[in-house]
Amino acid sequence: MIRGNDPILLTPGPLTTSLRTKQAMLNDWGSWDAAFNSITASIRRDTVDIVNGGDEYTCVPLQGSGTFSVEAAIGTIVPRDGKVLVPNNGAYCARIVRICKYLDRAVIDLTVPEDQPSTGAIVEAALAADPSITHVAQVHCETGAGILNDLSGVAQACRKHNKGLIVDAMSSFAALAIDVRNIPFDALVAASGKCLEGVPGMGFVIVKKALLESRAGNAHSLAMDLHDQYVYMEKTTQWRYTPPTHVVAALRAAIDQYKEEGGQPARLARYSNNCATLIDGMAKLGFRPFLASPVQAPIIVTFHAPADPAYNFKTFYELTRDRGYILYPGKLTQVETFRVGCIGAIDANEMRNVVSAVAQTLDAMRIKQVVPSPAARKAA
Amino acid sequence: MIRGNDPILLTPGPLTTSLRTKQAMLNDWGSWDAAFNSITASIRRDTVDIVNGGDEYTCVPLQGSGTFSVEAAIGTIVPRDGKVLVPNNGAYCARIVRICKYLDRAVIDLTVPEDQPSTGAIVEAALAADPSITHVAQVHCETGAGILNDLSGVAQACRKHNKGLIVDAMSSFAALAIDVRNIPFDALVAASGKCLEGVPGMGFVIVKKALLESRAGNAHSLAMDLHDQYVYMEKTTQWRYTPPTHVVAALRAAIDQYKEEGGQPARLARYSNNCATLIDGMAKLGFRPFLASPVQAPIIVTFHAPADPAYNFKTFYELTRDRGYILYPGKLTQVETFRVGCIGAIDANEMRNVVSAVAQTLDAMRIKQVVPSPAARKAA
Repeated sequence: MIRGNDPILLTPGPLTTSLRTKQAMLNDWGSWDAAFNSITASIRRDTVDIVNGGDEYTCVPLQGSGTFSVEAAIGTIVPRDGKVLVPNNGAYCARIVRICKYLDRAVIDLTVPEDQPSTGAIVEAALAADPSITHVAQVHCETGAGILNDLSGVAQACRKHNKGLIVDAMSSFAALAIDVRNIPFDALVAASGKCLEGVPGMGFVIVKKALLESRAGNAHSLAMDLHDQYVYMEKTTQWRYTPPTHVVAALRAAIDQYKEEGGQPARLARYSNNCATLIDGMAKLGFRPFLASPVQAPIIVTFHAPADPAYNFKTFYELTRDRGYILYPGKLTQVETFRVGCIGAIDANEMRNVVSAVAQTLDAMRIKQVVPSPAARKAA
Repeated sequence: MIRGNDPILLTPGPLTTSLRTKQAMLNDWGSWDAAFNSITASIRRDTVDIVNGGDEYTCVPLQGSGTFSVEAAIGTIVPRDGKVLVPNNGAYCARIVRICKYLDRAVIDLTVPEDQPSTGAIVEAALAADPSITHVAQVHCETGAGILNDLSGVAQACRKHNKGLIVDAMSSFAALAIDVRNIPFDALVAASGKCLEGVPGMGFVIVKKALLESRAGNAHSLAMDLHDQYVYMEKTTQWRYTPPTHVVAALRAAIDQYKEEGGQPARLARYSNNCATLIDGMAKLGFRPFLASPVQAPIIVTFHAPADPAYNFKTFYELTRDRGYILYPGKLTQVETFRVGCIGAIDANEMRNVVSAVAQTLDAMRIKQVVPSPAARKAA
């Protein structure tokens, strides 16, 4: 009962994966078996290599969505009396603030406008104003709007003030360049189902070994105790609790394809081309991106919704879905928008096709006025 | 690159799944899309139906392994000043004790011998001795040894004393009969990759709606807050954070096959036949089960290791694996054992075949003395 012609997912994950990646799930694996555990070991090694982490860093995979790994990183790494600065320009930053509150870690929720990046200067000012901050938690690409934060600047600010840095690189890892030699961090979190183009079901934390080894007994949760997961995995090569074996096998296949494609530079080039093709095509229909070009990450693009009163997202979504493309709702509070992802096992051809599909949807909905009203643009 | 002839997994999960279940992972699904969310809804409904939970109970699925759901259930349901009684006759009971300690919930670790079931009488005595206990956390089938605990008796004891009951039914749900009308519980935890024969990557908690709705703000973790997951899912039909889409689709396919097979009675009959065929066949080779027959659950069987000095588990495992069957190590502290699972998309034929494979392994290892020494049996 294999369906043909799945709609293409233009979302920030789950995303469209290659058939080869999905076919890697057609086997069952024993979680105790050496054949499976060598897959886990190779994924841990390869993900550390992507950031040039060498022997100083290790990768600890964790069951669950990426958010589970973000919470695990905060809970394991930040001491119970620590204080976390979260430069907040979107929904995923806000989620980290919420995690800190659940975990009883002191947190500073530093508002940054949704269309402006977090920068080294912003972080430096906050660190200077409150020396009791111990850690900065920075989202690299905030997919709420699709903005690229200045991770390098933030990392330099942390280094200068000797603060810990935890990076949520969920939607940037493996596509945007992150090298620990330029961007030193304590821990970096990503997941299987994003730019590595695996399927969702596991996250992982790339973390300084010495730091992690000092964090026994710090975590608030057994299941999300990265120290315990690490110690057990180092000792046995196995996951502590049942791993998502098929997801792990799919990630192995996805990383193989990533390497064959040419690794991070090649993936960035493909996504950048996807993004440019999308924005160009949509511009011809009258659509305007929410973000200015210099801060637009080539991961997901937020567009202003058409000004036409005939527009509503639900119908727009459904009619475009019927034409084979799944869009994503906007996540901004002030302006009506929708989002289109540029990531996954897709190329510029799919981007041209989604623009055609959107054009047909506009016709079907009798939408004439696509350019957003000046009021909407001003609200942004 | 599809491998043929995977070894058969005779483990308590991950287990061997049907090709149809695995093929359900050959599609990508958008986590925001109605088509996917109707799958989630149908799984929630079907799992509640398996325990005849009607409208009083709901199912909250959660990303991660089954342990994540156990921790989520304890953390969400037991009040912060609650006190949990854990009748402990194995590794999975011990894990619950450890979870309670991480979560700062008072816990009573009540030792029960590994070869003896937890019963209503044992629980009643403990409740009488300490009226401050608020909840009992009972593992149904403790796969450490494979023992069947008297869940019905424990549930009656909890009802009589008006205590909450949280059931870890990880390895029993959908195979052994559990009906809330006879076995009232507050929450019951299971997972995708066990007796429903899906692939691993998600758990779920079947819980009394009214109880769950009273637990806002109780959980220690954002990612594992079942109340928050429930409220969001009821409102939006979506998972809060990226669901393991392919695992969910595989579980849907697995439940379809479960229903076609005849549901719980048919599955229990197949597993019981698997178990009897295994024990009979192994007995002919001289192997003795660790547990007495009346308390042996038809899920996984612990056998005494051969007494012969030529035996070691690693070689025994590898040679049997080479013959197509993956065994499981023992988990007992006092006696040397190994385990053989009876669950998964397998039938009595596989059980006969694994006995043949074990016979060949014994020959290859020149093991003559299979029957355990009287000392080993006494230690048990």
